[in-house]
Amino acid sequence: MSKKVRIGMVGAGWMGRAHVSSYMSAYSIYGEKIGEPVFSILMDVNEESAKSSAEKFGFKKWTTDYNDVINSDDVDIVDIVTPNAFHYEIAKAALLKGKSVYSEKPLSLSGKQSQELAKIAKEKNVFNYVGFNMVMMPATAYMKHLVESGKLGQIMRFDGRYDQDMLLDPSIPLAWRHIKKQAGSGALGDLGSHLLSISQYIMGDIESVNAISKIYIPKRPIKAGSTKMGNVETEDYIAFTASYKNGATGQLSSSRVATGRKNYLGVEIQGTLGTATFNLERLNEVNVYFHKDKSIDRGFRNVLLGPDHGDYGMFQPASGIELSYNDQKVIEVAHVLDAFTNGTDYVCNFKFGAKIDTCVATILKSAETKQWEKVEEF
Amino acid sequence: MSKKVRIGMVGAGWMGRAHVSSYMSAYSIYGEKIGEPVFSILMDVNEESAKSSAEKFGFKKWTTDYNDVINSDDVDIVDIVTPNAFHYEIAKAALLKGKSVYSEKPLSLSGKQSQELAKIAKEKNVFNYVGFNMVMMPATAYMKHLVESGKLGQIMRFDGRYDQDMLLDPSIPLAWRHIKKQAGSGALGDLGSHLLSISQYIMGDIESVNAISKIYIPKRPIKAGSTKMGNVETEDYIAFTASYKNGATGQLSSSRVATGRKNYLGVEIQGTLGTATFNLERLNEVNVYFHKDKSIDRGFRNVLLGPDHGDYGMFQPASGIELSYNDQKVIEVAHVLDAFTNGTDYVCNFKFGAKIDTCVATILKSAETKQWEKVEEF
Amino acid sequence: MSKKVRIGMVGAGWMGRAHVSSYMSAYSIYGEKIGEPVFSILMDVNEESAKSSAEKFGFKKWTTDYNDVINSDDVDIVDIVTPNAFHYEIAKAALLKGKSVYSEKPLSLSGKQSQELAKIAKEKNVFNYVGFNMVMMPATAYMKHLVESGKLGQIMRFDGRYDQDMLLDPSIPLAWRHIKKQAGSGALGDLGSHLLSISQYIMGDIESVNAISKIYIPKRPIKAGSTKMGNVETEDYIAFTASYKNGATGQLSSSRVATGRKNYLGVEIQGTLGTATFNLERLNEVNVYFHKDKSIDRGFRNVLLGPDHGDYGMFQPASGIELSYNDQKVIEVAHVLDAFTNGTDYVCNFKFGAKIDTCVATILKSAETKQWEKVEEF
Amino acid sequence: MSKKVRIGMVGAGWMGRAHVSSYMSAYSIYGEKIGEPVFSILMDVNEESAKSSAEKFGFKKWTTDYNDVINSDDVDIVDIVTPNAFHYEIAKAALLKGKSVYSEKPLSLSGKQSQELAKIAKEKNVFNYVGFNMVMMPATAYMKHLVESGKLGQIMRFDGRYDQDMLLDPSIPLAWRHIKKQAGSGALGDLGSHLLSISQYIMGDIESVNAISKIYIPKRPIKAGSTKMGNVETEDYIAFTASYKNGATGQLSSSRVATGRKNYLGVEIQGTLGTATFNLERLNEVNVYFHKDKSIDRGFRNVLLGPDHGDYGMFQPASGIELSYNDQKVIEVAHVLDAFTNGTDYVCNFKFGAKIDTCVATILKSAETKQWEKVEEF
Repeated sequence: MSKKVRIGMVGAGWMGRAHVSSYMSAYSIYGEKIGEPVFSILMDVNEESAKSSAEKFGFKKWTTDYNDVINSDDVDIVDIVTPNAFHYEIAKAALLKGKSVYSEKPLSLSGKQSQELAKIAKEKNVFNYVGFNMVMMPATAYMKHLVESGKLGQIMRFDGRYDQDMLLDPSIPLAWRHIKKQAGSGALGDLGSHLLSISQYIMGDIESVNAISKIYIPKRPIKAGSTKMGNVETEDYIAFTASYKNGATGQLSSSRVATGRKNYLGVEIQGTLGTATFNLERLNEVNVYFHKDKSIDRGFRNVLLGPDHGDYGMFQPASGIELSYNDQKVIEVAHVLDAFTNGTDYVCNFKFGAKIDTCVATILKSAETKQWEKVEEF
Repeated sequence: MSKKVRIGMVGAGWMGRAHVSSYMSAYSIYGEKIGEPVFSILMDVNEESAKSSAEKFGFKKWTTDYNDVINSDDVDIVDIVTPNAFHYEIAKAALLKGKSVYSEKPLSLSGKQSQELAKIAKEKNVFNYVGFNMVMMPATAYMKHLVESGKLGQIMRFDGRYDQDMLLDPSIPLAWRHIKKQAGSGALGDLGSHLLSISQYIMGDIESVNAISKIYIPKRPIKAGSTKMGNVETEDYIAFTASYKNGATGQLSSSRVATGRKNYLGVEIQGTLGTATFNLERLNEVNVYFHKDKSIDRGFRNVLLGPDHGDYGMFQPASGIELSYNDQKVIEVAHVLDAFTNGTDYVCNFKFGAKIDTCVATILKSAETKQWEKVEEF
Repeated sequence: MSKKVRIGMVGAGWMGRAHVSSYMSAYSIYGEKIGEPVFSILMDVNEESAKSSAEKFGFKKWTTDYNDVINSDDVDIVDIVTPNAFHYEIAKAALLKGKSVYSEKPLSLSGKQSQELAKIAKEKNVFNYVGFNMVMMPATAYMKHLVESGKLGQIMRFDGRYDQDMLLDPSIPLAWRHIKKQAGSGALGDLGSHLLSISQYIMGDIESVNAISKIYIPKRPIKAGSTKMGNVETEDYIAFTASYKNGATGQLSSSRVATGRKNYLGVEIQGTLGTATFNLERLNEVNVYFHKDKSIDRGFRNVLLGPDHGDYGMFQPASGIELSYNDQKVIEVAHVLDAFTNGTDYVCNFKFGAKIDTCVATILKSAETKQWEKVEEF
Repeated sequence: MSKKVRIGMVGAGWMGRAHVSSYMSAYSIYGEKIGEPVFSILMDVNEESAKSSAEKFGFKKWTTDYNDVINSDDVDIVDIVTPNAFHYEIAKAALLKGKSVYSEKPLSLSGKQSQELAKIAKEKNVFNYVGFNMVMMPATAYMKHLVESGKLGQIMRFDGRYDQDMLLDPSIPLAWRHIKKQAGSGALGDLGSHLLSISQYIMGDIESVNAISKIYIPKRPIKAGSTKMGNVETEDYIAFTASYKNGATGQLSSSRVATGRKNYLGVEIQGTLGTATFNLERLNEVNVYFHKDKSIDRGFRNVLLGPDHGDYGMFQPASGIELSYNDQKVIEVAHVLDAFTNGTDYVCNFKFGAKIDTCVATILKSAETKQWEKVEEF
């Protein structure tokens, strides 16, 4: 019989809904061995929203105070899906109570605070997971394999970008994403951090960075249709050069006004024996080149992902049958449950998340100082 | 409050599981307006399987006799997910009882029997849906739009193929797919029928066909590892030329031993004003060319599907965020529920299914007579 | 010192100019060992054109009677670049005089006449070359290698098309291409014959064919801007199924009204061990899949052609440095010179050309009889 | 009748041969109006080479002293195709004599010297052309058009790279490319300068740069097969961020050890209204996205270049008929002749070349100082 994993969720918005749906899919697909998610209590600051969402999502109880979640005996994992600015406070409180925590990314809006959470999590020795869903993609698993197995040789370069054009239209009004206090940063935190998560997993630590950032649309209507304009405080675009501890170099960037790019997280990893490329708009494919192939037959291979790659085989029995973007979250949640239930290893712990948040902070700093900045070690 | 749609399912295998999961996802994604699926009774010939699957899938009751499903007052829709050879008998019995039926494809193993089912369904005036899931893809919706809107002009050609290489290995043992009585046909019925469903939806009726078929691996082990060999009776490959009622011509084919092709349902539609192409291995993209574009800027457009295309917007808010192959089934099931609950139109009725089964029968006949054969009208 | 190869050219139009330029490039690139082309005499029925072109192209003499070319002691090779309808008469006369002949394709407008030329050429034992330039492409050389080496295993399928949209516009006036007596056929002879030449080289003989053809634009202005319309007599589109002597099957087609396709000679060769694809719009690439690759790293390889492939290395020292469409003709002419001078083997002799013309005739016949037709052996 | 353009060539190596062949092709393709190239005198330091090449290339005279070329009354244009390190000295001497000069790139190994040449050329008011052949590509012409016409809106980003893997193998011995005195720089000067030439033409001036460089293979055999190793002094890889005067930003790079990349000069230009991409391995294509397209039909257009784009129409009558890498040089030489003969405008004058050489110097400096460096204006 399946062990129960009792979820206390903080936040009842779009991301909460996605988590609930992913718990259910994960349990259905991976089966009993990962533990059965049980929806114990849902918190939202808005009483109406807490109540109706609890019913819709299948939670037994609801509250408007996150302490009720943290203090509940019915909760094994505190699942934090609030707006970004609240992650730190809630996660810290939960950890200090000795609760296991599964938080959406980012852990906090500052490198320091995220490092603090990682430290507490380690001291408290509880399960701690931060939701960088792209780390769990079959494509990422395959790229990690290519690097770790040595098939690509010594890695010389890791180039990447995460480009979208969703904010290209200047009539799109101001929102939390544009305000520094609420978002911490713009394209970097929102999109670029995903790129950093893949980089961190595959390449390890970045030693220093050198960045430049731009706000291309400096003013936006304060609300839809308004002629009153407010200031955009966070970057539309950021580019940085990274120097990796392993000796490699990278050019990375992110834009939210990248015309024509819809979900273009593109990566190219060049090693002395091979090169791999990937683009999230085609998330079921990785291209790879092996220098050792006979030259007459040599070229980039368009590998359609399949059961050989990460958790793909949990979803489909053969390659070429596409997984979705949302399936990444299902894989993540399955690993959350499995790790909690069975003690299996997991990549995206708070230390991992703190490393990314520290990179984000350092990159932002470099964009201001216009100099190479070291990424703090911890 | 949501209307209940009570499901009686016949068959407890892999496809049954997929239907159940799709009902739940459809309800979660499309919401209450499409009706709430309720899992009333599950039938399987194997008692143990019926019992355990009923529990796992969430059915209230189980049985080993499909008549219990058909006769149940708790059942609104009889959902048939048995092996292909049994679809006809069960669907017919259900229709004659006046039950609504949702059957996996094909309706039967013969054109005649499928036509008979279509006729009965019409007489009984009940809901009747056959599960050609690719008809509901956003990609198909977009190609249909391109043709219907006149953007492609008068259609001259519809070329397509559905290629996989899953049966390339001669050591894969005999299975129902290889036996004519159980499968009706090989690559044509299994894969090519999906291509025909897209063709039927977008292009309308085929007038006549001219086919050639091959069995490349004529003998296979009777079971895994056995040295005893049995005959493969169904085609590994079939190719046919189609003459459409609308004046267009097509070269179509299907292979289950198409080395390197994993899920390659490829289509090219050429009209006097434009051309569209698609490949299921990249199911979130359609390429389209418009002759009217200024020549200096003219070329095939790689359209990443998005909320403009079919039901994509039910899943994601912006283009470039990939849907999965499985999401097609979710869309289908959502339309099944919506059509049943609200009387909305649907494409894949039994007449539609019977047209495809009639084409299949005619193509097989032509492969034997080695002549052009007319597709029977009904 | 280089041996001289004295050219007598019949025809002073666009193709003549291309041949002259290719002779010069070939000699410059391949060097003295292939023989030095010397331009002895040029014939054109139009005196003015003969005279001015002779000067422009560098011919020593000119004439308006092709017999002067055939009878000239200064001519080693009679190079025929007239309109198609005259190839047969001139080639026959030259062969009967014992002259070596290099004729543009097709050899004649009928299978029978081309067979007759092949027979005479053999009896006279002279050099005889027909200009199917795509046979000499690096891409074709590589595909031939893949098949001959056994890397693709036993070939099951050869699919291909040659599509252009140059005649899509109905206001383009009637020309020789549209008139049966002058052109023999339409899309098939003009474009499809190139596809057949690649097929013949790689796959060997076709046993029988089954075709359908269409004239989509049945009337065109008799001249540009005219309102007077004339009948188009040759097919805009033809599709045929081919049954190869080696047991493989093919779906092939050609269209001159294929919207969006500019120079789309596409090929797919499926064997039991691998599959290769090619498209002339990207003539410096071949995609190939090897079933024997480890499944985790397996996918179509995008091979950028290079010095390993055919005569590429004569042009560039490394792969990825694109050759042009015109370079194919240079390679052909280099082989013409080399074969004549040094007696090296060549593929595109008159027998090869007659086989293609026989296929063309058989395909046209099948499009009329609407039946499978055998390709005559000779 | 055609005006003669008398060429005095300095250098008899591979590049000299390429120039001669391009002069001849250019004259043959573009015709008399651009002037007829006449090969007056060829200089090479090696007497034997000068003599034999003069004969082979068709020069009337030869010499081992470049002053003979500069001082010759039979020379209109001094064409410099020596090793890079000698360009400056010869070009300067020629300019000071009032000769027109066509020099291969780079003008010199330092920004300062190139600026000096540009200044002298201006003072002397003679024809001065530097051979950045990629500026004349149809693809470049089209990208320039997209930017200049405003079709892409305000340009936000220009990203690019020029990657090859020709020097990936550590057993390739030391050559001039690896020695600072002879080459000036490594991947940057050799490859990256071409990227800079496209950038300069399309984007205008770079204001400041920030670079990082690497030597991945620090020692190589002093000659093929030797076990004695020598130091590689020039970078294998360089990456830089560029800040453009027009407000745009760019991440650019170049590697000569980029595994799998054969001739990958890739560019992406993002503007507020559209985005264009290009890759030299497919030099007959540009991809372009227009934000103004209706969203349902919107996507990157794969434009096969044709007569609408630059000088393509001089080579082929329709799109999809590929030009070669070498054709770029033919276009360049045609413009050299045309500009000299008819006084038509040209892009790649010495000032243009000096700007690129100044960028190269500044980028190298930044890689040493590890700071943003301003590109000197002149």
